[in-house]
Amino acid sequence: MTSPRSQVLLSTCFVSSFTSKVLTPKYLSSTIPCPSSARMSVPAVTFVTGNKNKLREVSQILNADSSQTPFTITSQKVDLPELQGDPDDIVREKCRIAVGERSRALTLVEDTCLCFNALKGLPGPYIKWFWDRLGHDGLNQMLAGFDDKSAYALCTFAYSSGKAGTEPIVFSGATEGKIVPPRHSPNGKAFGWDPIFEPAGFDQTFAEMDKETKNSISHRFKALAKVREHLTKEFSD
Amino acid sequence: MTSPRSQVLLSTCFVSSFTSKVLTPKYLSSTIPCPSSARMSVPAVTFVTGNKNKLREVSQILNADSSQTPFTITSQKVDLPELQGDPDDIVREKCRIAVGERSRALTLVEDTCLCFNALKGLPGPYIKWFWDRLGHDGLNQMLAGFDDKSAYALCTFAYSSGKAGTEPIVFSGATEGKIVPPRHSPNGKAFGWDPIFEPAGFDQTFAEMDKETKNSISHRFKALAKVREHLTKEFSD
Repeated sequence: MTSPRSQVLLSTCFVSSFTSKVLTPKYLSSTIPCPSSARMSVPAVTFVTGNKNKLREVSQILNADSSQTPFTITSQKVDLPELQGDPDDIVREKCRIAVGERSRALTLVEDTCLCFNALKGLPGPYIKWFWDRLGHDGLNQMLAGFDDKSAYALCTFAYSSGKAGTEPIVFSGATEGKIVPPRHSPNGKAFGWDPIFEPAGFDQTFAEMDKETKNSISHRFKALAKVREHLTKEFSD
Repeated sequence: MTSPRSQVLLSTCFVSSFTSKVLTPKYLSSTIPCPSSARMSVPAVTFVTGNKNKLREVSQILNADSSQTPFTITSQKVDLPELQGDPDDIVREKCRIAVGERSRALTLVEDTCLCFNALKGLPGPYIKWFWDRLGHDGLNQMLAGFDDKSAYALCTFAYSSGKAGTEPIVFSGATEGKIVPPRHSPNGKAFGWDPIFEPAGFDQTFAEMDKETKNSISHRFKALAKVREHLTKEFSD
């Protein structure tokens, strides 16, 4: 009952610009062929996203682990609809849609939230709209009327084996912290709301940290650790 | 080129509890048969909603007009997915989905926003989540850090004739006003965020006004006037 094992490989088959607009009824935009370096002898799980930053971060986290896993991660550029709802429901539904479009292949999707405790978890899944329109200062200003500046970054992945009768499984990772006036690293480009999120126990924002430190404590890292554990078990059985 | 005309009739075929959760992949929950009073000799446009309050308000507004129209409005209980995006995109996509499920019948859908100018139009289409979690006081508190308390209520309808090659048409209505600490009418139940929205030129909130006054100036009334004008023209040609 052993399976071939080798290092996790994330095939960066594409880089696409992020769009969060509501899209045309046919959500699947294209399937990108993976490079020949993808291991063909083990199951390939497809990470479905249209966001190059997420793809890069997932790649960094998975490739940072030297343990061997019995699957590969490939990617596909798909503009999935952005849904409203609770984070778990959103990502589960996103996965169902992706599976429907991809004819029941092994599918992984992701969604990210920034949750202000004073706002009872909001903006949550709508953070990209707030960040885009209000910027870092505006997000701080929204909390001016509240003493509580605490927040948490939440990452949820949903995975479907595509087997009939199964539902997508959700894996969440959260990092506690607080909202602060924006602080960037003097080098490098800031990613989204990273400059205003200072994780608990650190005096740097996500944007000030080096990538390795951030990836070792981030919400995405924690969720991906659960994804990896599940997939390793699934494909080792 | 004349069509039969008679008074608009909105068949309140159902009353359902509102749900804004992300739903199962098959969004269409049921088709409710309309009462025999529905006029069968003129085209029936189906207002697709799962919200009994919206249905009641649309009914009040359409029935308040004594002019004769060459169509009837019926209703159907459908739990459509709640999408993220710009208001026009959201309601257009909602209409496409409803048309797809309903096999190309004449279809009308609606979406409502409450837009804070200080937040560049947000919470906008996400207002129900903010209202539900933060309540009236919390919504006021979100604006504590901003001098600008102005806001507008926005209602968007999308209509599809179902004809091949056509796109849903969007009709919008907006009512300017400001966000105030909650004030209710001593009688009657407040509806959503009505107690904190004071329309410009009035010293009452939507919740303090009598229904007739509110319906004569509301965002929904303005959008519905455009819907009625379009449908009257379409079915008179």
